Amino acid sequence: MKQIDLMKELHVFSDKKIILLVMDGLGGLPGREGKTELEAARTPNIDNLSRDSIVGLSTPVAPGITPGSGPGHLSLFGYDPLEHRIGRGVLEALGIGLDLNPRSLAARGNFCSLDPETGVITDRRAGRIPTEKCAALVEKLSGIRIEGVDIIIRPVKDYRFALILEADGLEDGLTETDPQKTGLKPLAVEALDNGSQKSADFLNQWLAKAFEILRDERPANGCTLRGIAKDPGLPSYAEVYGLKACAIATYPMYKGIARLVGMEVLDAGDTIASEIETLKAQWDTFDFFFFHVKKTDSAGEDGDFDAKVKVIEETDSFIPRIMELDPDVLIITGDHSTPSALKSHSWHELPILLYAKNICRDTVTSFGEVACMQGGLGHIRHTDIMALAMANAEKLTKYGA
Amino acid sequence: MKQIDLMKELHVFSDKKIILLVMDGLGGLPGREGKTELEAARTPNIDNLSRDSIVGLSTPVAPGITPGSGPGHLSLFGYDPLEHRIGRGVLEALGIGLDLNPRSLAARGNFCSLDPETGVITDRRAGRIPTEKCAALVEKLSGIRIEGVDIIIRPVKDYRFALILEADGLEDGLTETDPQKTGLKPLAVEALDNGSQKSADFLNQWLAKAFEILRDERPANGCTLRGIAKDPGLPSYAEVYGLKACAIATYPMYKGIARLVGMEVLDAGDTIASEIETLKAQWDTFDFFFFHVKKTDSAGEDGDFDAKVKVIEETDSFIPRIMELDPDVLIITGDHSTPSALKSHSWHELPILLYAKNICRDTVTSFGEVACMQGGLGHIRHTDIMALAMANAEKLTKYGA
Repeated sequence: MKQIDLMKELHVFSDKKIILLVMDGLGGLPGREGKTELEAARTPNIDNLSRDSIVGLSTPVAPGITPGSGPGHLSLFGYDPLEHRIGRGVLEALGIGLDLNPRSLAARGNFCSLDPETGVITDRRAGRIPTEKCAALVEKLSGIRIEGVDIIIRPVKDYRFALILEADGLEDGLTETDPQKTGLKPLAVEALDNGSQKSADFLNQWLAKAFEILRDERPANGCTLRGIAKDPGLPSYAEVYGLKACAIATYPMYKGIARLVGMEVLDAGDTIASEIETLKAQWDTFDFFFFHVKKTDSAGEDGDFDAKVKVIEETDSFIPRIMELDPDVLIITGDHSTPSALKSHSWHELPILLYAKNICRDTVTSFGEVACMQGGLGHIRHTDIMALAMANAEKLTKYGA
Repeated sequence: MKQIDLMKELHVFSDKKIILLVMDGLGGLPGREGKTELEAARTPNIDNLSRDSIVGLSTPVAPGITPGSGPGHLSLFGYDPLEHRIGRGVLEALGIGLDLNPRSLAARGNFCSLDPETGVITDRRAGRIPTEKCAALVEKLSGIRIEGVDIIIRPVKDYRFALILEADGLEDGLTETDPQKTGLKPLAVEALDNGSQKSADFLNQWLAKAFEILRDERPANGCTLRGIAKDPGLPSYAEVYGLKACAIATYPMYKGIARLVGMEVLDAGDTIASEIETLKAQWDTFDFFFFHVKKTDSAGEDGDFDAKVKVIEETDSFIPRIMELDPDVLIITGDHSTPSALKSHSWHELPILLYAKNICRDTVTSFGEVACMQGGLGHIRHTDIMALAMANAEKLTKYGA
């Protein structure tokens, strides 16, 4: 029996409140004086909290697997990321704040350069044109009309754009058109099964018109479509957990992923401080709060150890404000590791802290990678976290008599 | 999604090199002064390495399950041993250095004693005849010819022999002919499905001729066939991991198992010293090295605590030679435990050490069963090891966007 089905079967209502505080890319590797970012950060409040908590290490997807933001968050939310996949087109659309519905088919688009004579791709990223140029081209492409389908197109960044088709009966299961190397022509979209033929036809019509419009542009006289996908149609938080859940996040991507599982996305401003204000203001309205801190990950991606330390310290400084609300369950972790030493997401297990009333406190009195190796939670999987949160919030009934 | 499919999807090429150093049957139980063989052994080099490594305990197949050599190694290689089974006939053939191909069907044979009057088995092992006698009988049976099939037969040890049939369309899914007790007649081979009827017919023809030839022999006037199986057709290391992998081993069985997953089997002599020479000589040619030390297991099986300690110490003495090669990832573990106290394989978790650049070092500074209980890797499964090795060698790309 899948965990998600267990949750559907066993959840009950209680007035307890759960906060899932996600510092994106929290996990790190030894840098300064052999300490990780989290270990080097002064976190008196979280360390203090750890005395009343149980800690451990959690694996986002599977041992050795480096997750993208989609799988990292799906697993935090309790959905098996190896079973439920979110297409890149969907994430790209969510990332710029576009909404998807069950009629939407989303693709990531790349402008590229074609040899005007032969039509083969000479640069898969059109010389990485600036975002303004991308926006101007997207403006031109936004004039494309196809009968029977609504079309939304938006610039993303550099040579990337997001394309959404909306119509009844659009299914995914489609090939990409980027041949993955130069010297080859862009491919047509092909349906991988009968159900997606209609989608393929619309996309190929769109591509034909787009190539016509782009013909005299330089360097971006062509484009390719990748990661063509629909909203995976995940069961909602209300359905699975019986929770009235909200998302407090500053970046569109994370708001979008939260929306995929039916969380209400709150207006939370741009800073941790404004997120905290939102949390306080909405405390009585919800019983589950996904609270997302983005800049730990950005700093890690930039390879900036000190900046990551600083974001962790800033987050720590708000812990008393969170504890004033007296949450019944507070979980602090990340969606994955982003060690500044690697300047990228990584596969490493990362620290998790579970604060709740009915736990067996362990002997760990700080929050860091090495300390958590000795934590009472041991080594868990991200997909276990929601079940632990639910249990500790007295929101799960007994399994079996 | 299965881990092996994830590896197929996510592997990328890098020039990093991985060594999997397997001390067969490494895990032990407390003997001398309450220490296990590994704990009693002087291993200054591995202990030193553990300071730059992360350690833990690994379960070969599942809790409580004692693995044979086949499942123990398959799981080390990342193949779920509960899903992929290697028939005993295949292992017996590999164990004496016979090669199998997709047309081969392999069986383990046992000489037995029959009552000349009634034909029932009076001794299932023919009084454990010596190997020379076995070889003489096999020589006689090697004259058997059946149209449409090539037959290979070789003595193994005592009353055991290996039989291989080669033809197109031979499938496994066949019953054994040993009735498992005396007082009953040997059974016929039966096909468990339509596909294996041809195999059953050939084997029953062979058995009829064999009984004819053995009729006047004493005590081995009959034989039985067990574990009739084909090469399980595992996807290769190249396919799953994109690795150019080789096996450095001294015993045919382990060379054979490595060959099942497409490793190139190197000529590595008979000693750890000659294996090390092979490793050095072939360092530039491969990116994955399965390095097998046999005699830890043999000593454990013999119940010889001190001999097992000595093999571990000898292996330790070669660690500096290995580190001179500057491997990117070095894993030290075993396929399973073989405590000398039990004189057999056992189900116990066993120590594992993972050395790589981008790890969170734990606080463990020696390599032994009890020390590894506090290791930062925690408790893992053998089937996780290859994914961790691949990640640490930067040979896996991100999962999902």
